[in-house]
Amino acid sequence: MMSLAELQRRIDHGDLSADEAIARSCEATDEHDKTIGAFVCRVKDAHAASTGPLRGIAVGIKDIIDTSDFPTEMGSAIYRGWRPRADASVVAMLKQAGATILGKTTTTAFASRDPTATLNPRNPAHTPGGSSSGSAAAVAAGMIPLALGTQTGGSVIRPASFCGVAAIKPSFALLPTVGVKCYSWTLDTVGLFAASVEDLAHGLAAMSNRPELRPRAALETPRIGVVTQDFAGAPDAASGEALRIAGGAAERAGASVRAVTLPEIFAQAWRIHPTVMEFEAHQALAWEYRTHHDAMPPLLRAKLDETVGLLPAEYDEARGIVGRARAALACLFDDVDVLLTFSAPGAAPKGLDWTGDPSFNRLWTLMGVPCVNVPAYVAEGRLPVGVQVIARFGDDAGALEAARFVEEALTRG
Amino acid sequence: MMSLAELQRRIDHGDLSADEAIARSCEATDEHDKTIGAFVCRVKDAHAASTGPLRGIAVGIKDIIDTSDFPTEMGSAIYRGWRPRADASVVAMLKQAGATILGKTTTTAFASRDPTATLNPRNPAHTPGGSSSGSAAAVAAGMIPLALGTQTGGSVIRPASFCGVAAIKPSFALLPTVGVKCYSWTLDTVGLFAASVEDLAHGLAAMSNRPELRPRAALETPRIGVVTQDFAGAPDAASGEALRIAGGAAERAGASVRAVTLPEIFAQAWRIHPTVMEFEAHQALAWEYRTHHDAMPPLLRAKLDETVGLLPAEYDEARGIVGRARAALACLFDDVDVLLTFSAPGAAPKGLDWTGDPSFNRLWTLMGVPCVNVPAYVAEGRLPVGVQVIARFGDDAGALEAARFVEEALTRG
Repeated sequence: MMSLAELQRRIDHGDLSADEAIARSCEATDEHDKTIGAFVCRVKDAHAASTGPLRGIAVGIKDIIDTSDFPTEMGSAIYRGWRPRADASVVAMLKQAGATILGKTTTTAFASRDPTATLNPRNPAHTPGGSSSGSAAAVAAGMIPLALGTQTGGSVIRPASFCGVAAIKPSFALLPTVGVKCYSWTLDTVGLFAASVEDLAHGLAAMSNRPELRPRAALETPRIGVVTQDFAGAPDAASGEALRIAGGAAERAGASVRAVTLPEIFAQAWRIHPTVMEFEAHQALAWEYRTHHDAMPPLLRAKLDETVGLLPAEYDEARGIVGRARAALACLFDDVDVLLTFSAPGAAPKGLDWTGDPSFNRLWTLMGVPCVNVPAYVAEGRLPVGVQVIARFGDDAGALEAARFVEEALTRG
Repeated sequence: MMSLAELQRRIDHGDLSADEAIARSCEATDEHDKTIGAFVCRVKDAHAASTGPLRGIAVGIKDIIDTSDFPTEMGSAIYRGWRPRADASVVAMLKQAGATILGKTTTTAFASRDPTATLNPRNPAHTPGGSSSGSAAAVAAGMIPLALGTQTGGSVIRPASFCGVAAIKPSFALLPTVGVKCYSWTLDTVGLFAASVEDLAHGLAAMSNRPELRPRAALETPRIGVVTQDFAGAPDAASGEALRIAGGAAERAGASVRAVTLPEIFAQAWRIHPTVMEFEAHQALAWEYRTHHDAMPPLLRAKLDETVGLLPAEYDEARGIVGRARAALACLFDDVDVLLTFSAPGAAPKGLDWTGDPSFNRLWTLMGVPCVNVPAYVAEGRLPVGVQVIARFGDDAGALEAARFVEEALTRG
């Protein structure tokens, strides 16, 4: 994979020009994307900006995120060839920081569950996960050092786990969703994919103009609470192994690691995530559903058909549970700095007809808290399995720092 | 003005066809809009839907709200002729409820402060207020029974007060902002204008599919706390008179009315509203500001130029104050059902070069609580002055019911 931090260092030291760095991404993409299919479209003659912390960094943008100079097709025939007027805020922020937008990456239609044709670069017989399929795959295949995705259930952390890359779903609204196709306005969160947690920290700090997110020289030793989310079902052996390995490595590196049991309110919150998500989706996608019902992607259409009777009262009750669970979660973080849990129930499923199960992600999206995927284990078939490090709402710096601690601990073994 | 509730009753009873009701709106608009200039564009051959609670109701849509069958120009040359692909969620919801979208109403550019050419129907020498200028004016002039606006500072309640119409800025996110041009994602709120509070309740209940918002047969007698928001400056005599009259009428009608002093945290929250708003605007309008700086409307451009150095840390601190003020406000509502305060510092200013002062609105937008404007007084020059009724977050039904109580009390004098 391409390291963003390493590219930045070489560009800063004059060992590599920003244009050379972009050219490398173009070449790597030419080489790998023929088989992987991570991009929907991209520029052929990409150039670097002359200034900005992300000059020389080629970025892939999930194709539900508006771009003024590329079509934005939402993974759906309904938007074939659609050209938005403006860049989404996150695209403008990347450009402001000097990044070069290389192109648009594949997304399941409307970031829901209808799969793309993108292959998993670790094992092309398996899905890269979704909905941010192309962004995870493009980084995993070493085409680009940074990509944007979005998560409403598990659409950033799960594909990152399946593809063996680092990713962050930041605190809700840390990155604006202005210009991002909405599925659920209380859940949709823009996230980043990169080769390492350090890269994520550099990328997020630069685009958000938040120097406090940059990697610190000396890592604090975190207090880690391990949660298994029993209400979400049992993970496969591979995910169990990943969590055991990550927890063990962190402990050997000096972290305090202990099991934490989530109170009942979290099981309730986990259960009502679909109520919040689908109630809002019916409003967010009302025009598409009303006027292009037949052209809607079939899995999404079936889900919307099935939930068409959801009442505002059910939604309001679900939102009440969310409020109580968030308050309970804030208390939980009095005793630990971060939580550590599964990124997915197992390695990437075989085939391309299913993007995998977001069961271990949806509670944390609902809580709005920052989650970082760290690759922790490689299962049979060269299939990576990650763990996620979760911090208090707003403590994205803490989530990144603890994730880097776990990442480094895993390197040492 | 045209009464939505009266139109509904006549259509339900078969005294008026839905198409006749729409034709009346078209005729009234033909007659009045030549002088008022409330519409940017509209259909010439509007028809009614055959079903739905809002069949026969012609609606004007503020021109920052996406429509699939009209251009959406944001009041700015940057979006001249721009055609969105989809309807905004609120437009789809109106259509679903049977409403007919008559056209797009004028907006200050990007719903900021650069004025439109729309006249105040009560006195054409005065501004109708902004930013939802056309929506307030079209309802006030009797062209249409319902219009949508948006409020980030005081862009619904202030023009409603200036034009002498009822309006609601609902609880934050009660109506989705999907497909609404963003200025500030924690503040932007879609609101409704109509001839009376009863009309607002029918309109909001129908479009949101929330029967609990429909007007109840018997009104509860509210406990009213009167707040003067001294931190926002002193109002003109006309607004002082409006508040005195409304409070007095409510008290004579049996309400408990007492002065409430807002704790210091609310003054702090009021002060940092611009920090939240402009920090988010810099991200929401990043593409326009970066790539069309010269074409930006001058007052908005000057505001963004002036606030270009706002730091994430200042924003984070402001958001912390918001959280504390919201908690304090929830406690305040233990003792009163609603608050009653000024809708604006006075009647509509003379001339069209200034849309007026949102100082008495911005705290409540920041708190996310429902606010309803009730016309309460007519000052010199036939200029209306309103008061606003404010309820607890989520209690839109309570805000509407208490506002109707005040409205009826004022009718009785």
